[in-house]
Amino acid sequence: MKTVKIGIIGAGRIGKVHAENISKFVPELEIKTIADPYMNDETREFLERLRIPNIGKDPEVILNDPEIKAVVVCSPTDLHAEYAIKVAQAGKDVFVEKPIDYRIERVHEVIDAAKKAGVRLQVGFNRRFDHNHRAVYEAVRAGTIGDVHLVKISSRDPAPPSIDYVKVSGGIFYDMMVHDFDMARFLAGSEVTEVYASGAVLIDPAIGEAGDVDTAVVTLKFANGAMGVIDNSRQAVYGYDQRVEVFGSKGAVMDANDTPNNCTFYGADGTVSGACYKIMWDRYTGAFAAEQKAFADAILNDKPTQVTGEDGLYPILIAAAATKSMKEGRPVKLSEIE
Amino acid sequence: MKTVKIGIIGAGRIGKVHAENISKFVPELEIKTIADPYMNDETREFLERLRIPNIGKDPEVILNDPEIKAVVVCSPTDLHAEYAIKVAQAGKDVFVEKPIDYRIERVHEVIDAAKKAGVRLQVGFNRRFDHNHRAVYEAVRAGTIGDVHLVKISSRDPAPPSIDYVKVSGGIFYDMMVHDFDMARFLAGSEVTEVYASGAVLIDPAIGEAGDVDTAVVTLKFANGAMGVIDNSRQAVYGYDQRVEVFGSKGAVMDANDTPNNCTFYGADGTVSGACYKIMWDRYTGAFAAEQKAFADAILNDKPTQVTGEDGLYPILIAAAATKSMKEGRPVKLSEIE
Amino acid sequence: MKTVKIGIIGAGRIGKVHAENISKFVPELEIKTIADPYMNDETREFLERLRIPNIGKDPEVILNDPEIKAVVVCSPTDLHAEYAIKVAQAGKDVFVEKPIDYRIERVHEVIDAAKKAGVRLQVGFNRRFDHNHRAVYEAVRAGTIGDVHLVKISSRDPAPPSIDYVKVSGGIFYDMMVHDFDMARFLAGSEVTEVYASGAVLIDPAIGEAGDVDTAVVTLKFANGAMGVIDNSRQAVYGYDQRVEVFGSKGAVMDANDTPNNCTFYGADGTVSGACYKIMWDRYTGAFAAEQKAFADAILNDKPTQVTGEDGLYPILIAAAATKSMKEGRPVKLSEIE
Amino acid sequence: MKTVKIGIIGAGRIGKVHAENISKFVPELEIKTIADPYMNDETREFLERLRIPNIGKDPEVILNDPEIKAVVVCSPTDLHAEYAIKVAQAGKDVFVEKPIDYRIERVHEVIDAAKKAGVRLQVGFNRRFDHNHRAVYEAVRAGTIGDVHLVKISSRDPAPPSIDYVKVSGGIFYDMMVHDFDMARFLAGSEVTEVYASGAVLIDPAIGEAGDVDTAVVTLKFANGAMGVIDNSRQAVYGYDQRVEVFGSKGAVMDANDTPNNCTFYGADGTVSGACYKIMWDRYTGAFAAEQKAFADAILNDKPTQVTGEDGLYPILIAAAATKSMKEGRPVKLSEIE
Repeated sequence: MKTVKIGIIGAGRIGKVHAENISKFVPELEIKTIADPYMNDETREFLERLRIPNIGKDPEVILNDPEIKAVVVCSPTDLHAEYAIKVAQAGKDVFVEKPIDYRIERVHEVIDAAKKAGVRLQVGFNRRFDHNHRAVYEAVRAGTIGDVHLVKISSRDPAPPSIDYVKVSGGIFYDMMVHDFDMARFLAGSEVTEVYASGAVLIDPAIGEAGDVDTAVVTLKFANGAMGVIDNSRQAVYGYDQRVEVFGSKGAVMDANDTPNNCTFYGADGTVSGACYKIMWDRYTGAFAAEQKAFADAILNDKPTQVTGEDGLYPILIAAAATKSMKEGRPVKLSEIE
Repeated sequence: MKTVKIGIIGAGRIGKVHAENISKFVPELEIKTIADPYMNDETREFLERLRIPNIGKDPEVILNDPEIKAVVVCSPTDLHAEYAIKVAQAGKDVFVEKPIDYRIERVHEVIDAAKKAGVRLQVGFNRRFDHNHRAVYEAVRAGTIGDVHLVKISSRDPAPPSIDYVKVSGGIFYDMMVHDFDMARFLAGSEVTEVYASGAVLIDPAIGEAGDVDTAVVTLKFANGAMGVIDNSRQAVYGYDQRVEVFGSKGAVMDANDTPNNCTFYGADGTVSGACYKIMWDRYTGAFAAEQKAFADAILNDKPTQVTGEDGLYPILIAAAATKSMKEGRPVKLSEIE
Repeated sequence: MKTVKIGIIGAGRIGKVHAENISKFVPELEIKTIADPYMNDETREFLERLRIPNIGKDPEVILNDPEIKAVVVCSPTDLHAEYAIKVAQAGKDVFVEKPIDYRIERVHEVIDAAKKAGVRLQVGFNRRFDHNHRAVYEAVRAGTIGDVHLVKISSRDPAPPSIDYVKVSGGIFYDMMVHDFDMARFLAGSEVTEVYASGAVLIDPAIGEAGDVDTAVVTLKFANGAMGVIDNSRQAVYGYDQRVEVFGSKGAVMDANDTPNNCTFYGADGTVSGACYKIMWDRYTGAFAAEQKAFADAILNDKPTQVTGEDGLYPILIAAAATKSMKEGRPVKLSEIE
Repeated sequence: MKTVKIGIIGAGRIGKVHAENISKFVPELEIKTIADPYMNDETREFLERLRIPNIGKDPEVILNDPEIKAVVVCSPTDLHAEYAIKVAQAGKDVFVEKPIDYRIERVHEVIDAAKKAGVRLQVGFNRRFDHNHRAVYEAVRAGTIGDVHLVKISSRDPAPPSIDYVKVSGGIFYDMMVHDFDMARFLAGSEVTEVYASGAVLIDPAIGEAGDVDTAVVTLKFANGAMGVIDNSRQAVYGYDQRVEVFGSKGAVMDANDTPNNCTFYGADGTVSGACYKIMWDRYTGAFAAEQKAFADAILNDKPTQVTGEDGLYPILIAAAATKSMKEGRPVKLSEIE
């Protein structure tokens, strides 16, 4: 088995998720070093159990290590672009968590840096690797449903984030629906050309006071003529509700939520089956390993990555258009954004 | 549209069900006369609303009416054979409710009478005409699952009958599982050769005191080598539970219970969908019309009936074998019965 | 049982459907007379089998019959309003097929005529009476999902109508989505205040040449703050696809398509279950009887109808707003319409 | 986190499965040594990637290592008992793969050895730890369905083993249904008292020539009065079909097969969803980790194991009774066996 040595920058929640998944499920990626300026004892212990040989605080160690050929950037969002550019400039392949940056020009800088350095760039849109969504995607790409006419996505979180987080999140379109914008492009196989966004504050007035909405419906038009519609809610009391449907000239393909088990109870008051997963990490557990598997495959077999820099850029453009659309109460063309 | 004039003997529960279904859904069968010695005002009013022209108390009127070409026998069970024979002797086609009789020799007499008179005989095993079971049957007959290896039937009632009824019912194998014996033969496409029956009193000790069981599992062997298993319960608190499955060399086909609607509620405590129907007439509503449609088709297009006298006989033989098996604690061959 | 004598004006497709359903399932409504200027022999024969005593060509016979207390108007669409007004003026309760009229002022005239005459007016939005949609509605009204946040409707036809029909249909919003506008209001329990409509020609260019679209997505805002989204397609090759979902503060409730049976085949290539119904009359068969049952209930028990004149008006207003929105490429407030 | 050092004897298929699952998912069990007399380079490499420090050929190294407190016995079946006894005699907790032995007296020797040595003994009935079956079990134990009346198990393999294997397998009851005998006891919460077994050769005549059947149906009676029924097939072309159902006084609980994804395709010819898993390791992947988690929990928290020596014994007794029943064509009481 071919392997490659990698580093991980950032050991917060998502950094640990990637470290664990790579250690357990992606033997092709050998984690040599993980660095986080805020590394603490608990995290260090967790990483030691994964048998990562070098656990430190200084990302420069990774950037300067010629043995390390690729780096997974899991820093805070506002440092994604900075580290991604540094990694690229060091001549290493880059996996950067999404969003690359909320500022469109910064995203371009990352894409340009990777191109200039001739390194691979993969963006962490993990849902593309979810077993259900991927199966829908593959059916669509295989022509099972013919030409795509409509992409429908329901994406609802179990509970809203803290108001403090909402205030700095960039708004529901950047923070939450950005995943669905990526999924919509991925499933449609075409670029979004126009966006109409509509939102409401139905869950918590404090979200509205923070300048955001908690419920949103967005209509999309794609270059290939297809349409899309996405609904988001910050609070589905029954759990993490993630369903996609693609309708076309030869049929429709859709997925259902995973549940912890497939049991059904037939009782006097009705038939009861399991609720959705309540936690994102449970819902998308396999997707995190699969996206790193794909990253390893790109590196080791000299292929383009499956989620490119442009794939990181477009959802941000769509989020910008959606934000403008909701603010101005009118459909916004993507061409108005850049 | 070709039509034929018919009579109905018996206007109890099942007689009214047939009268209503034929009136509404089987225009090929024109009900000229219905007769029941216990005809009362309420029933008469119900039948008048169906616009049946002759409503009376004397079955002889039907037997002696040369215009009437076929008769639906819905008398009490102990008179089924007597009326069926009289109808046959009058040269009219016979539809007789199941069971023809619990006594094997009486069943033979009915079959013989019909043969001798050269009239058609159809037995009221309505479940063969249920849309779900019929679709399973058709898939099996179409070869979808290849050779049949196993027939599985779950058949559970919402609530036990009265103890008075249990005492005269002939026991669970004659009264309840007889339907499933018919279904097993129907699905397997082969005759039962051996039966092992096992039962228990788990719902109401009074059923045991009445000499019966309320829960039973029966294993069948078929002439074509396939096996079968049936479970019965007198009380499924969630409703009328009726599922069949046929497994074979190329796959399996099974049905699910119908529910009053296809709604699902996603709630914090789980996903809830509708319970089964609670009442037999709701569950099998379409089957009663469909079996009369089939009777009309046989008469008007000169075909054999789909549920013959032999189809009425075999389930009684199997019930006899099951009763003997449970009593003697051993498998019983059908050849031991007659 | 209390009954009332009624007349039916129009014996085309929907007239025959109502005549048959009322005859079979709504004994409270006694059809005395049905009249259609184009009555032909085949239709007459069909109606005779239903035992309707008076079958003729002149609707005036119905209007002038003092015994007839209510009339079901099934004329061509452009005569709905005219007959509805005449029926009202004759002092009879009115059931009028949808749409009352495409012209808003005509709808008002019908509503006003009924009010002035003090008669009941019910509009034929049959889907409100479908067992699945009704169960969703009842769950929502019972508070099962708490406050309504989002109403989602997918509504797709098996095949597009003829181009000749498309040309005179008024467009997809008046002809097809008008049902969904009614359903959206019904489920949301609130009035639509704003509409954004987006459409495309993806199925047949001839539909575009006729000035219409064949695929449409509409976003709605309701007075209570909730949002809605409807998608329509003129051609779902898998059949009549009709699903609704209501999401709220305590969960979500949704329905699934009915299928002719509940069988599942487990085969080497996957698990196959039945397709949706391919024909509208099969899909909504029970709904036609149920809406007449409700009409009878309103008449005989002196209640308001369940689908009022206003319920006939609002979907037309929404269709007007949607048409304007798609034409002008912007969200349109309902207040702009009247 | 408390941890304990363990050894693994045997590095064949199941030995590698346990080594991998423990390494990745059960950090409480630290694999110090794995030994297999037939250790080859490929296996060694696989185990090295799991970072197991000592990989060798001699099980005695494990038996003699005082640091090792527990041993997982994954030897060939005919050595299970021998190694289990040696491990117990060395004062170490034992996890032994099923079946402990086909000979009842040898099973007793293992149980006695563990008792005498005062060590824990867990038997590898992994299906008890499957997420679906476990959820059914927990619902039953929680009283959700009230008193247990009936346990139904369908258990079908994707393809028969080689005829060479069939010849030495001990027959379908020992080799395949033994899992279901365990599951039946587990779900019923009661001991089997009587068995009636029926079998047929429907898949491959060579299986019959080897003295075995390939299709079997077994009826069980439990001490608590409940009944059970199990069906086995050596070949379900659609995959690994594993479903259980428990019916009782307050309802029924059942599980469904897992599938690789939850996608559904609506096509013109029907609705298609994913097939069952085709491979046992995929179907029960989580169960292998979960049973080792439970073993760790028993050791570290000083609890009895969840699958005791007696749990290893009873399925063998039932298999013996079933074999006898099929041979003699009569129900066999468990009391006849020992």
